[in-house]
Amino acid sequence: MPLRETNIVSGAQTKFGKLEGVTLREMFAEAVEKATIGSGIPLEDIQAAFIGTFIPEMLVHQGHTAPLLADYAGLRGLPATRHEAACASGATAIRAAIMAIESGMYDTVLVAAAEKMTSVSTNKATEALAAAADDEFESSMGLTFPGVFAIAAVAHMQEYGTTEEDMALVAVKAHHNAAKNPLAQFQKEITLEKAMTPRYIAWPLKLFDCSPISDGAAAIVLTNNERAKQYTDTPVKIIGTGQASASMNLCDRKNLTSFEASVRASRIAYEMAGLQPKDIDVAVVHDCFTIAEIIATEDLGFFKPGEGAKAVREGVTAMDGDMPINPMGGLKAVGHPVGATGVKQAVVIYRELIGEASANQVPRHDIGLMHNFGGTGATCVVNIMRRADA
Amino acid sequence: MPLRETNIVSGAQTKFGKLEGVTLREMFAEAVEKATIGSGIPLEDIQAAFIGTFIPEMLVHQGHTAPLLADYAGLRGLPATRHEAACASGATAIRAAIMAIESGMYDTVLVAAAEKMTSVSTNKATEALAAAADDEFESSMGLTFPGVFAIAAVAHMQEYGTTEEDMALVAVKAHHNAAKNPLAQFQKEITLEKAMTPRYIAWPLKLFDCSPISDGAAAIVLTNNERAKQYTDTPVKIIGTGQASASMNLCDRKNLTSFEASVRASRIAYEMAGLQPKDIDVAVVHDCFTIAEIIATEDLGFFKPGEGAKAVREGVTAMDGDMPINPMGGLKAVGHPVGATGVKQAVVIYRELIGEASANQVPRHDIGLMHNFGGTGATCVVNIMRRADA
Repeated sequence: MPLRETNIVSGAQTKFGKLEGVTLREMFAEAVEKATIGSGIPLEDIQAAFIGTFIPEMLVHQGHTAPLLADYAGLRGLPATRHEAACASGATAIRAAIMAIESGMYDTVLVAAAEKMTSVSTNKATEALAAAADDEFESSMGLTFPGVFAIAAVAHMQEYGTTEEDMALVAVKAHHNAAKNPLAQFQKEITLEKAMTPRYIAWPLKLFDCSPISDGAAAIVLTNNERAKQYTDTPVKIIGTGQASASMNLCDRKNLTSFEASVRASRIAYEMAGLQPKDIDVAVVHDCFTIAEIIATEDLGFFKPGEGAKAVREGVTAMDGDMPINPMGGLKAVGHPVGATGVKQAVVIYRELIGEASANQVPRHDIGLMHNFGGTGATCVVNIMRRADA
Repeated sequence: MPLRETNIVSGAQTKFGKLEGVTLREMFAEAVEKATIGSGIPLEDIQAAFIGTFIPEMLVHQGHTAPLLADYAGLRGLPATRHEAACASGATAIRAAIMAIESGMYDTVLVAAAEKMTSVSTNKATEALAAAADDEFESSMGLTFPGVFAIAAVAHMQEYGTTEEDMALVAVKAHHNAAKNPLAQFQKEITLEKAMTPRYIAWPLKLFDCSPISDGAAAIVLTNNERAKQYTDTPVKIIGTGQASASMNLCDRKNLTSFEASVRASRIAYEMAGLQPKDIDVAVVHDCFTIAEIIATEDLGFFKPGEGAKAVREGVTAMDGDMPINPMGGLKAVGHPVGATGVKQAVVIYRELIGEASANQVPRHDIGLMHNFGGTGATCVVNIMRRADA
């Protein structure tokens, strides 16, 4: 089924990082305000809200977040629904909103997402994050996410000769891009030497291979073709969307060097958009760990299996490379407030495609792709966007 | 917008109650198996899964439930998304599935929901449930749900003269209906005297005014018009759906004798269906507490404000009354595995409308309504269904 009616007409994020004294509802409201009133879209035009949060239950003892957050953002009374898919929560909220627009149920809707993670200790946050893995087979045994991605990294190293330095180069690129992004958690460059500091979290992953614990929120407004022109001269159309799942636990996977849900979701999205990987000008991929970026660029078909690391080494994925990946800094350096990440990715692609990415603007920017996954890739969402006038 | 394409073609639930030794994924898989293979619908026909769970994070340390549960039920790989709106989680999953079908994104989808609540202590369960209220303004102050609904009961008693006996009669009716329902948690009658036993949970609410802590799962299959006929001679069409929200905390409500989100959601659903309250043959409403049933029947327009209790006293809401409410026993006596409740309500209406409600069959059954709300009515969903041949 082709998508015909879904346009992004605004997008905004808060600063990501340790936002002292700012609550979940406050950061959510800030992102919504920027994406609506701050972008010339009256709050009264919003007919429904699709909200992504991962685990506020364990982080701030707050479930049922949709009506609470919508209310605080000035949208009391609206249908407001919460979508959760671990780190892919934000993208599943976008998918629900796409179907809402395409069905004709609503004309204009908000997608917004937030996570407040720094109000608890790192141990508590790690325990909360572990709920994204299979509790019966993985997390209850002590297998947390750095360990899970370390297993994938070892498999990739063994199969393709990927090195710790290759992964470190992903971190160096992320920090290089984020240094120009005022909303990034780590707005500074790092050297390869620093990235290689042997502070192991779970061998072979070191401190700089891991995305941080972050607070933050992001929001976009989606609307149909008729309304889009009222809000902006440069709507961005969502032209393809794919979602797939995989077994939650690694022991049921055939292969640890690729995430099959990423492959499947992207193929669905490409087919819907009538495009191929080579048609994508810019992509944001789910780099919760540096190895995840390398694998994602292979799974999405930008590079052959095993050649993702080479692309990093040769600068192909740099902001000015042939296939820019995470040009604003990715989860690694911008931060990863889990539920918010998928919506933040859409904001990045929106800003890149309309040419408003400031110092992080990529040269070619007609068509963009976002890749958001949850857990160890047990959920994956890929959305493809095209500037309406492109 | 009218709904044109959404049909329920099967529905099933597990036994509700304290299901010793049965895990979340096992009960989920049982409900899915009954609603698919057990109803003549091949698993391969299911293209996406929309899943409702409320708070497995705190009850069984499991987030990211959608791919996990889908996988365990034999649906590995599918797009599987989790929807959470406290006690209305199941109904928000149904709404997402409706939009998926109406948009043409999928032909045939599963909606399934489950909650495993009895694996933790009652105190722990109460703490988890409290996450459905506003943590900053209510739950952190010790206001848990029996207290919240006690406040509503007192307001209703004060405004309309509703009595503790009126509420007890709701419980007597619920147990009377559930006594015939083999899937109910409490499959036995109670006397008015027993319901009036002064075992106060939060005055004026007594033990028998409260729905129990339960385990359970439910599932339905939705499909478009073309496919519906392949599966059944008696599809049930969803012809109206409404969702609304309200402030999370009570202090922002104008009125405690009515839940404004119920009023608004039902008016949207009636308008979409082109129907009025008098056109409804049978309804299931969200009776988490007996007072909630009384208020719901007023909010939905079946009775005037303040006349819900009179309807109970006069037997109007009995299984063979003019406006049967919760003919299988409701949350009160069938049980309330929170996330599963909305989908179970759809199963009840489906079974009633196709005439397969056995000893709980209501006499007129062309058009039914389900009303599912979350928290203290901060989220409400109303769906109206009609048997396709009616």
